[in-house]
Amino acid sequence: MTIISKATNRKLIAIIGGSQCTKEEAQTAEEVGRELARQGAILVCGGLGGVMEAACRGASTEGGTTIGILPGENRLTANPYVQIPIATGIGYARNIAVVKSAQAVIAIGGSYGTLSEIAHALQSDIPLIGLNTWSLSRNGQQDSSIILAQNPEEAVNKALSLATNSKS
Amino acid sequence: MTIISKATNRKLIAIIGGSQCTKEEAQTAEEVGRELARQGAILVCGGLGGVMEAACRGASTEGGTTIGILPGENRLTANPYVQIPIATGIGYARNIAVVKSAQAVIAIGGSYGTLSEIAHALQSDIPLIGLNTWSLSRNGQQDSSIILAQNPEEAVNKALSLATNSKS
Amino acid sequence: MTIISKATNRKLIAIIGGSQCTKEEAQTAEEVGRELARQGAILVCGGLGGVMEAACRGASTEGGTTIGILPGENRLTANPYVQIPIATGIGYARNIAVVKSAQAVIAIGGSYGTLSEIAHALQSDIPLIGLNTWSLSRNGQQDSSIILAQNPEEAVNKALSLATNSKS
Amino acid sequence: MTIISKATNRKLIAIIGGSQCTKEEAQTAEEVGRELARQGAILVCGGLGGVMEAACRGASTEGGTTIGILPGENRLTANPYVQIPIATGIGYARNIAVVKSAQAVIAIGGSYGTLSEIAHALQSDIPLIGLNTWSLSRNGQQDSSIILAQNPEEAVNKALSLATNSKS
Repeated sequence: MTIISKATNRKLIAIIGGSQCTKEEAQTAEEVGRELARQGAILVCGGLGGVMEAACRGASTEGGTTIGILPGENRLTANPYVQIPIATGIGYARNIAVVKSAQAVIAIGGSYGTLSEIAHALQSDIPLIGLNTWSLSRNGQQDSSIILAQNPEEAVNKALSLATNSKS
Repeated sequence: MTIISKATNRKLIAIIGGSQCTKEEAQTAEEVGRELARQGAILVCGGLGGVMEAACRGASTEGGTTIGILPGENRLTANPYVQIPIATGIGYARNIAVVKSAQAVIAIGGSYGTLSEIAHALQSDIPLIGLNTWSLSRNGQQDSSIILAQNPEEAVNKALSLATNSKS
Repeated sequence: MTIISKATNRKLIAIIGGSQCTKEEAQTAEEVGRELARQGAILVCGGLGGVMEAACRGASTEGGTTIGILPGENRLTANPYVQIPIATGIGYARNIAVVKSAQAVIAIGGSYGTLSEIAHALQSDIPLIGLNTWSLSRNGQQDSSIILAQNPEEAVNKALSLATNSKS
Repeated sequence: MTIISKATNRKLIAIIGGSQCTKEEAQTAEEVGRELARQGAILVCGGLGGVMEAACRGASTEGGTTIGILPGENRLTANPYVQIPIATGIGYARNIAVVKSAQAVIAIGGSYGTLSEIAHALQSDIPLIGLNTWSLSRNGQQDSSIILAQNPEEAVNKALSLATNSKS
């Protein structure tokens, strides 16, 4: 009997964004989550509210799998659409685990916590798709590492096509 | 339409032990993984070889879900039976995430890495079941926090009955 | 006999920047380190080469104290001007410790690792002074949280005047 | 002009133990801190109360250097004898940094947090001296990795003679 790992079959995509967000960002996040689930990807996020909750809600409505990597020790702090809560107790270090574990990352809006996750993703050459999120320049020169998308479907399609097993 | 989180339905149980282990420990781990899957629990572990691989293999043969929280950045370092690799890039800090995310922990054999995980679990009052693993005494007094089990089935039954949503 | 903590007397300032850098950035970093030492501050950094090494070299020449919080386990990976190597073994999570431990941060140039540190600092309202480093905008709006400085002396003066004991 | 790193001259020794402790443990910790300072070593600890505070108090009375690596973000949570507070914001992951950064570790009493630090030290072959602390056995066999000491002076002498630059 041979057991084939499913690791190579289902892609792991992170959605990052603020724990508080606008109504518009929530709608975007929900649609991104929905589309990821439709295409069979596993959603990983920081497990809290705002963009994270909306994304998990979207994925859940389509029967998708949702993982929330929480900063604290209490799994009950996860939003109600997280199916697999990972309550790390390692505080901000969990931001790193969220993005490093993904094969591609979709950023929606977001504040400085999201910016730290964007930076950690780019540091490891993990494809980063942005929907109305940060833009960066260094020494006056625009940094074009964030791959822009105009809508949820485009973001998901880009994330899935760029997701690889090569490095992370 | 109501969406019910599955977080409350499926228990998350960690299996910890050495990345190198004896044949006997591997057999024990495989049977623990198998039994966890039969009873519907999600298995979380450190994602590498030895006890971790044997446990994931057991769970996989019964159609269970396996999560591997890896120390490094490369998801391909996960053993082939890990379905959801979390490649954290945070080194030893991942040991903490493995146990803190579980509602109960089963330790099989193990060396100092496993001992650190036992300590982190007990520190957070997470039920810890031991199969031929460390025993502890402090200032000459035996510490009885590790709940002993004689075989895989007993370990799984104790873990599942003690797993709670109350704290972690 | 009363013992007064020196913690309130000597300020802890982080210098962040690339482990590889231009000659100009190295000169800037060295002068920043020198000036911090002259003014009695303790320098904390990531402990490796490039900007970090140049800053530690500058501080050392003025008799200052230098702390290097390293990602790996080997204290010998610290640059030769680190007096107190903290070899954490926690990988990228050490980036967070570098900035969170400081009362103000000075960023010089830098790539994505530095950007992650900038984000973690801003997330915690730690004053962040920039010398030819990243600039940020969000949803098309310039973010002005990074306090610009034109030269090393101005950067150090701003860092020391903004450093507080209030939060971090 | 040649700059010689002081890193090779002053040894970094960790003291670990409970944030709450008995009067006797506090006296032991204070004397250990005192002796470490007399012999020129830098003391690193978790920065909080109990054994950590007593050790820092001892070192301070002899003019020693004390570093506290804190779990939270607030440097003011450090005990008053910490001269260099490192407020990491990474929670339990800081336990790892405390021991991995030391060339030798002295454990005094302690609960499960201390046990996790003992395990992380032994995992990295960092010499671990115990004063009335945990003792360990595995599969019924006593583990003799913890080097026992009968009094503070013996603990410090053993720690300093075993401290090396070779690995950590």
